[in-house]
Amino acid sequence: MPSQAHTIAVIGGTGAEGSGLALRWAQAGHRVIIGSRDGAKAQAAAAELSERLGGGDIRGAESAAAVSAADIVVLTVPFAAQRPTVEGLRDRLQGKILIDVTVPLVPPKVARVQLPPTDSCVVAIQEMLGDGVRVVSAFQNVSAHKLKDLGRTIACDVLVAADDKDARRIGMDLADDAGLRGIDAGPLANSVVAESLTSVLIWINKTYKVPDAGLMITGLK
Amino acid sequence: MPSQAHTIAVIGGTGAEGSGLALRWAQAGHRVIIGSRDGAKAQAAAAELSERLGGGDIRGAESAAAVSAADIVVLTVPFAAQRPTVEGLRDRLQGKILIDVTVPLVPPKVARVQLPPTDSCVVAIQEMLGDGVRVVSAFQNVSAHKLKDLGRTIACDVLVAADDKDARRIGMDLADDAGLRGIDAGPLANSVVAESLTSVLIWINKTYKVPDAGLMITGLK
Repeated sequence: MPSQAHTIAVIGGTGAEGSGLALRWAQAGHRVIIGSRDGAKAQAAAAELSERLGGGDIRGAESAAAVSAADIVVLTVPFAAQRPTVEGLRDRLQGKILIDVTVPLVPPKVARVQLPPTDSCVVAIQEMLGDGVRVVSAFQNVSAHKLKDLGRTIACDVLVAADDKDARRIGMDLADDAGLRGIDAGPLANSVVAESLTSVLIWINKTYKVPDAGLMITGLK
Repeated sequence: MPSQAHTIAVIGGTGAEGSGLALRWAQAGHRVIIGSRDGAKAQAAAAELSERLGGGDIRGAESAAAVSAADIVVLTVPFAAQRPTVEGLRDRLQGKILIDVTVPLVPPKVARVQLPPTDSCVVAIQEMLGDGVRVVSAFQNVSAHKLKDLGRTIACDVLVAADDKDARRIGMDLADDAGLRGIDAGPLANSVVAESLTSVLIWINKTYKVPDAGLMITGLK
């Protein structure tokens, strides 16, 4: 069991990255709600993950209901869907922690860093939501298929950035609960590193012909 | 001896980062010229490095002369000095490779990512110099005092980004010659990762009370 069990809504949780995180958090003893625009699809995905895990508290719901029932909301949608999705959930997010996993990839050149005018797309979401929501940046650099392989130890650190120290700590704990290592990466502005690194990892995968390059921070005690 | 011996001018080579790289390249068998606005200071620094190394081909010169004598120019100056320094050397740089180590730190908040309007400060230099100079981004994340400790194995990868593939390869080889591991990080636009990561590493050093956090790319063969 984790040190503190949360109710975590994973918006976009029917996708590869979101469902991988959901699986690992349910395994660690958190209550997980898969959120999707399509509630039936979310329920089907939750049932599949429960079966895969052989238990765990995973259910599915339409996104708005998922957010309302959660204390932590995790956003795992494509860049183009990030802002409209958050706008639609804005009121329900107030008072909660939002962990934004969005990577500002611009197809077709996804192996090339192309930051938005605000640099960090997660900082832009914090500015839109205001101080009532504590936004955390994390999990941009972890490959989805590694997460789904529950027996596997993942050699990839998670850079966790947030302006609120307690929210940053919770993000780091959730990385640890997912079998990764959460690293305190500082204020939300530092999210630029994780957001841009994904393109470099995609480049490395292609160039070195490997399936899932990651990063580790060295020199820690 | 390196696979190919270069004549490398290290502009700003009297500083900590530049002199650390100079030392390691001289040790590997390259000809190194320490460049500085003050030629006498450059010669004194070169003499000191030669003594430390117990040999090696290291000399000092005023920056313009150093650039003219070199086939590879390495820029290790503070962000505020980057553009004026390159502007002053512009004509002499034509036809050469420029390895730009500049990190866009904005004091006093150096542990906070604050990218310039162009995102990458190295891309801005490539645009200023034009196609006649092949600009490479590298070495932003290696701690200077690790470089100076010649007996030490450094657990830190070097992300090497450049639009020219051959120049990128040379940057990677120079990382290897310095006892590091050069990683092909793709086009010059991907320099954003290395440029922003330094602030995160400074944050980590402070937060985890360690002297020199670094990065390693995992998942390579």
